[in-house]
Amino acid sequence: MKPFTIVPPDPLLSAALQHKIDRKTKPLGALGRLEPLAHQIGLIQQTLTPEIRQPHMVVFAGDHGAAKAGVSAFPQDVTWQMVENFLAGGAAINVFSKQMGWGLAVVDAGVNHDFGKRTGLIDAKIAPGTANYIEQPAMTPGQRDAALQRGRELAHALADNGCNCVAFGEMGIGNTASASLITHCLVGAARDGDLYSVTGRGTGLDDAGLIRKRQLLSRALERGGRHHDGLEVLAQYGGFEIAMMAGAMLGAAERRMLILVDGFIVTSALLAAHAIACNVLSYCIFGHRSQEPGHRVQLDYLDAQPLMELDLRLGEGTGAALALPLVQAAVNFLNDMASFESAGVSDQGPAT
Amino acid sequence: MKPFTIVPPDPLLSAALQHKIDRKTKPLGALGRLEPLAHQIGLIQQTLTPEIRQPHMVVFAGDHGAAKAGVSAFPQDVTWQMVENFLAGGAAINVFSKQMGWGLAVVDAGVNHDFGKRTGLIDAKIAPGTANYIEQPAMTPGQRDAALQRGRELAHALADNGCNCVAFGEMGIGNTASASLITHCLVGAARDGDLYSVTGRGTGLDDAGLIRKRQLLSRALERGGRHHDGLEVLAQYGGFEIAMMAGAMLGAAERRMLILVDGFIVTSALLAAHAIACNVLSYCIFGHRSQEPGHRVQLDYLDAQPLMELDLRLGEGTGAALALPLVQAAVNFLNDMASFESAGVSDQGPAT
Repeated sequence: MKPFTIVPPDPLLSAALQHKIDRKTKPLGALGRLEPLAHQIGLIQQTLTPEIRQPHMVVFAGDHGAAKAGVSAFPQDVTWQMVENFLAGGAAINVFSKQMGWGLAVVDAGVNHDFGKRTGLIDAKIAPGTANYIEQPAMTPGQRDAALQRGRELAHALADNGCNCVAFGEMGIGNTASASLITHCLVGAARDGDLYSVTGRGTGLDDAGLIRKRQLLSRALERGGRHHDGLEVLAQYGGFEIAMMAGAMLGAAERRMLILVDGFIVTSALLAAHAIACNVLSYCIFGHRSQEPGHRVQLDYLDAQPLMELDLRLGEGTGAALALPLVQAAVNFLNDMASFESAGVSDQGPAT
Repeated sequence: MKPFTIVPPDPLLSAALQHKIDRKTKPLGALGRLEPLAHQIGLIQQTLTPEIRQPHMVVFAGDHGAAKAGVSAFPQDVTWQMVENFLAGGAAINVFSKQMGWGLAVVDAGVNHDFGKRTGLIDAKIAPGTANYIEQPAMTPGQRDAALQRGRELAHALADNGCNCVAFGEMGIGNTASASLITHCLVGAARDGDLYSVTGRGTGLDDAGLIRKRQLLSRALERGGRHHDGLEVLAQYGGFEIAMMAGAMLGAAERRMLILVDGFIVTSALLAAHAIACNVLSYCIFGHRSQEPGHRVQLDYLDAQPLMELDLRLGEGTGAALALPLVQAAVNFLNDMASFESAGVSDQGPAT
């Protein structure tokens, strides 16, 4: 696999962007979080008049061998059933993508189900589910590299078709468990990333279920060890949907696209991508903070401030999908608001 | 003036709404804040299939006699200049209203400027600015009642034209000072509403300006006294835009409309409306938490959880405007998501 080559945005336009933001008809800084967001987007697109073109939500689905060991409140069949729900248009991500204007692509990265050839489903299946990481590595290095490369190609194809803003979602029963292991490995106990803290209830485990999940993940860690290398962590504990997402994030950053990050599982993919090529972070916008406790640990580690905190814990990309209007608002105020000069409004002066 | 008569929503549909929310294809509660929001909207509209019809943003503008004493970082002329900016389409609220699909109405509640007859401007001027509350009550009881009644009529007219969701914004140099006095009176020091805590930098006062603002407001309070009655507080310290907004909120609740609440100044109008008829609260959705420190005090007092926290401090209704997609998302998931039954997805069971 060709190494990922990500160049951070050139800061050349930084001062001009800030000046444009500051001359809008508003008190300095009064648009809060939207102001650095507009600045970031302008730098990424290297323009004072950025635009969001053909935003796409890509939902990666995959199954986890460990799901059968009992790390989730739902049976594994729910993965393929929810993919069918995506294809039928009935899931939350369908509803929100339609409302917000996202194109929606669903990717079978490794679901344990034969969908056949289906309209609206991208077949990128690496294998019908990962191996159970409690007993052996989740995937081979070859499978991991294939997943990363396929993700990269998907992102590049979107860019080739004119998309400059991509969000990622996921579906995979058991994938909060995988995300917990990845987070523990890449954040580390010294940064509040001890396994216990970053392992939560996922789709809704009760207290006994949460205790069992933590025990199972401790066993996985005893077997596979705690690694700091993004590639090794993906092979040991990843899901195919997580590895492919990491590849897609890296591929999107290679093409200077905006990346809208969702919740705990998507951010675990970003942790892996960041460990592989840290410049990916410059292209990321964080949609929301999830209710899953490990998400806060991930965001703190990445020094990321999400735009919203709605106590979501659904996944599918829903938290990223809901943030698109804020991203668009940042672009719109930069492009469309009047300046003090153009509107003939008096600038802030000393109080009289 | 006829008393405001606000009936809280009938809770009859509560269980049916919750059941519908819980059977959607998602873990229980996984849509976080959107779930109680959908429930609230269903109750307000008394239906399992609510809808947002013709949402309107109404921006009330007014001048404050105290502005000339130096409670703001901007000169008073900026009020009418910004109204011109609204009419020309160049302000943040124009940009965001257009993006989000709000109809936008601008109301001259009492600006110290003669606009003449203008397309897009509703002339509801009570007087060209309030009196300086440091020296005398801001308005007479008659002016206050006229403002409340005019606001009510504006809301009723929107309802008559098919609008069922209204947001309020404001423009008025000096109106964070008025909002601070209102908040102090109606929340009280025992609830963290001491005058010092609820008086902030507004549009951007420096340290010296903030000290002066606090001194001036202390003098106003010594003159006018601390009242607990919403009507008296409006007359002593209100702005015409604030009083008219309070009337519009009460009028909107009379007609069972959703009310989207913006930041510190709009919430000060809600505090007054709430003191006049507390049931208005059932109809309110809180768009955001402003950076103005008194807003947190107001929200805590009202036990309100805003949907977003973007460090905005612009006013104009911008924080409410940006929240419309979340309100729409709550309605959409309730209406359009599949249920476990309709999608053939396995319900949450014990982990196997």
